[in-house]
Amino acid sequence: MEKGTATWTLGLLAEALGGEAIGPIDLPIRGPAPADGDDPEGVAFAENERFLQVAEGSGVGAVIVSRECRSIAKPAIRVDNPRAAFGMLLALSARPLTLDAGVNATAVIDPTAEIDASAKVGPFVVVGRHARVGARAQIFPHSYVGENCAVGAGTILYPGVVLYRDVTVGDRCILHSGAVLGADGFGFAWDGNRQVKIPQVGGVRLGSDVEVGAGTAIDCATAGETTVGDDTKLDNLIQVGHNTHIGSHTVIAGLTGISGSCRLGDRMTVGGQVAVSDHMSIGDDVVLAGRTAVIQDIAVPGAYFGMPARPLMEAMRSIALAAKLPELLSRVRALENRVRELEGGGE
Amino acid sequence: MEKGTATWTLGLLAEALGGEAIGPIDLPIRGPAPADGDDPEGVAFAENERFLQVAEGSGVGAVIVSRECRSIAKPAIRVDNPRAAFGMLLALSARPLTLDAGVNATAVIDPTAEIDASAKVGPFVVVGRHARVGARAQIFPHSYVGENCAVGAGTILYPGVVLYRDVTVGDRCILHSGAVLGADGFGFAWDGNRQVKIPQVGGVRLGSDVEVGAGTAIDCATAGETTVGDDTKLDNLIQVGHNTHIGSHTVIAGLTGISGSCRLGDRMTVGGQVAVSDHMSIGDDVVLAGRTAVIQDIAVPGAYFGMPARPLMEAMRSIALAAKLPELLSRVRALENRVRELEGGGE
Amino acid sequence: MEKGTATWTLGLLAEALGGEAIGPIDLPIRGPAPADGDDPEGVAFAENERFLQVAEGSGVGAVIVSRECRSIAKPAIRVDNPRAAFGMLLALSARPLTLDAGVNATAVIDPTAEIDASAKVGPFVVVGRHARVGARAQIFPHSYVGENCAVGAGTILYPGVVLYRDVTVGDRCILHSGAVLGADGFGFAWDGNRQVKIPQVGGVRLGSDVEVGAGTAIDCATAGETTVGDDTKLDNLIQVGHNTHIGSHTVIAGLTGISGSCRLGDRMTVGGQVAVSDHMSIGDDVVLAGRTAVIQDIAVPGAYFGMPARPLMEAMRSIALAAKLPELLSRVRALENRVRELEGGGE
Repeated sequence: MEKGTATWTLGLLAEALGGEAIGPIDLPIRGPAPADGDDPEGVAFAENERFLQVAEGSGVGAVIVSRECRSIAKPAIRVDNPRAAFGMLLALSARPLTLDAGVNATAVIDPTAEIDASAKVGPFVVVGRHARVGARAQIFPHSYVGENCAVGAGTILYPGVVLYRDVTVGDRCILHSGAVLGADGFGFAWDGNRQVKIPQVGGVRLGSDVEVGAGTAIDCATAGETTVGDDTKLDNLIQVGHNTHIGSHTVIAGLTGISGSCRLGDRMTVGGQVAVSDHMSIGDDVVLAGRTAVIQDIAVPGAYFGMPARPLMEAMRSIALAAKLPELLSRVRALENRVRELEGGGE
Repeated sequence: MEKGTATWTLGLLAEALGGEAIGPIDLPIRGPAPADGDDPEGVAFAENERFLQVAEGSGVGAVIVSRECRSIAKPAIRVDNPRAAFGMLLALSARPLTLDAGVNATAVIDPTAEIDASAKVGPFVVVGRHARVGARAQIFPHSYVGENCAVGAGTILYPGVVLYRDVTVGDRCILHSGAVLGADGFGFAWDGNRQVKIPQVGGVRLGSDVEVGAGTAIDCATAGETTVGDDTKLDNLIQVGHNTHIGSHTVIAGLTGISGSCRLGDRMTVGGQVAVSDHMSIGDDVVLAGRTAVIQDIAVPGAYFGMPARPLMEAMRSIALAAKLPELLSRVRALENRVRELEGGGE
Repeated sequence: MEKGTATWTLGLLAEALGGEAIGPIDLPIRGPAPADGDDPEGVAFAENERFLQVAEGSGVGAVIVSRECRSIAKPAIRVDNPRAAFGMLLALSARPLTLDAGVNATAVIDPTAEIDASAKVGPFVVVGRHARVGARAQIFPHSYVGENCAVGAGTILYPGVVLYRDVTVGDRCILHSGAVLGADGFGFAWDGNRQVKIPQVGGVRLGSDVEVGAGTAIDCATAGETTVGDDTKLDNLIQVGHNTHIGSHTVIAGLTGISGSCRLGDRMTVGGQVAVSDHMSIGDDVVLAGRTAVIQDIAVPGAYFGMPARPLMEAMRSIALAAKLPELLSRVRALENRVRELEGGGE
């Protein structure tokens, strides 16, 4: 299978990465590979002994290593920073999904919508009333941009993204397939006979450089806007409730649920399957380890874990102790016997 | 950005809500806003001191308060029930996604399908054999209504909903984007060499007034039907397994997984990320707090929590004690030393 | 509602299943039903006394039972293996979603794509450059097959499946609606000012006979491929991270998250809402009970449970003891009092 369009030799790639080729400079290199890969034309990187050994034992053709690295049993490229050099190679090899220029003839665009002339709109896309699509934006097939939505410059909607209504997406955002922004917030009031729907009339606003993973749902606000700050990255299958505000530069892993009316800070790191109860406030620079459940506000920066969330080390200690409960129980039983002895023996 | 179509003044809105305007009656009001909003033409509501202070400190133009409320530093509307009045305002402001009348020319409708003349069917919709779409139903773009499915009167399928086959949806239901009803139940039998697929030949049946969140999946039954009762509301990214029956008026929050062959009662409240094992039976009026895992039947109404689910208070106590395990361990160690002393000292 | 196309009588069905009809041989049988069903023309199966009683008390018309079964109060079919016979009946009743032969006129197929003449491609499908669709494959409406993807012989993409780029799907696979394969792996590096995206240039490769549930997302590799082995079955709403490798014949239940760079073995059984941290290695024949969190490698076959994962029995014991913490605390308090007495009492 053809993979990537860039093709180098060991020598040319070393030059491109500002490094030194060790081995046959005409060795063909097709592109980047994982250290445990099996492509003889792939090049991996190894920044420590463990990865070096993996790469030496695998089928990859060459390895990017540091200048101080021991000599290895494979062709190599020596560079100052193997990880950074590999990142450069990834960037050189990137080959994003393509979309033809202009608006595809099959797309259904409301006459009141404004599509920038440099934007690309694919087959079967629907763009509603008063929606705006910015310069160089790309709207892939089967996406829906609802009434009064705005898609910023350079933003990508991959196939099958849905923006309901009053959804504003900043510049250079990436929304992956199946992402749904602006569905109704989940609000009902039990009137004694039935669940009365609370109308959800607000919108959603993403800053710039936001990434939203496949299948992730960000509900509209009851009134006002649910917001996500600049440069924040959401993984797949995340739920963000109505009227929640997520800060900037925050990274959230998959299957996490953020309830409604929460306020999350800047530069947070949130693991997978985390839960945040409604109306929680969490400060800047907080780290929530995977599976953590936040049921009280967190103001102090640092790492938290567990259900309910506690400082990471404290939570780890409790979890470790929980595994020792059977032993603790035995010790209590032994104590009871010894005390009974001391008291003069039981019956 | 234009938001909402309704525009009032403080005086006119007070009149519409049956309340009394306090402040300039010609103050322009664009629509509802959250208490912490920044729209000077937005009106929030505050039913207690905490929200009053938030609203007073925020940029919202006016606040809906109770008749007994203390005087506040902003224009206000005094009403009997601020929350109810705000709900009225939300309803007045609601502006659902629009869809043109009739069946869009691009839609692919099987000749045997029956579409009510008052239904709206959007671009790129596919409706299969013998499917039926009821009066005033709205099928948004990119939705798929499979063979022998029925969509009730007034029901809405937002963009990108999929109904496989033999899926019956009642009246006035709302299915959000990415909802998938009728995919195969997850059934395989290991025959010693491979996972043999158990054919899933049943359907799905939703009652009336059901809401299904974005990305939520309700699998078809192996035989018979997976069912959801009237007025039940499912949030986003929920999984409902094959042959499960969910009662009426039940509300389930996001990322919850209900396995196959379960029976959930009426008027249940289920938090986010809850898990219910297969074949569980849960009675009416049971509340499952977020992240609860049900691995035994629950018959008695009340609130449950934890893994495994236990009565809420009991579970909370255990969780609180788990946090005190390090202290408990210290106390046991101290006891051991003291008993050793009493026994005549160690070595 | 018409259900299924096969219609039997009790006598004809008994013959088809190699069994013996007990009761009126001309009793009409429409198809399979659950034991608690209410269809008088449905036939259920009962392999034990509990299901027998359910079936006797329900509305189903007849029951498939074993040859040794006690006599029951309903028409029956006696067979050697009721479960296997019911499976046969399910297979006879299966009526998959239909798709017209050939490539639908509305589909947008890149001229460089290769579609086998026997494949079916539905309305509004998009197939990108150099993509290949194999013999008898079925691509349902609104699916997207991106550049350089391959869909194997007999494989089904239900409505709304997305394959990004360099996604290879083997033969006889089933991908349910909303499945997204090949979205960017979740990789960012904080440079002190912003989250720098690490380009994700790899692909996804599924073996043959793989099933992928509704809404499940399998990310592309950073470089190389994210892989899923032959005959592995993934339920709905599962997240599989970049560069992860899942073995063959493994079954994973819904809402489970597998992070990046993991290696999962063959014949694993993974419950719902399980979490696997990144870079974990898990061996063959490992069973992870629902909600388990794997944060250390697991090499030894067997059943595991809990957070962190421990051998099932050990984890169950700890969980049971956690419920007894209040009692343990009381016992420690009592011991403290008794020791204080022994020590001479008093504060």
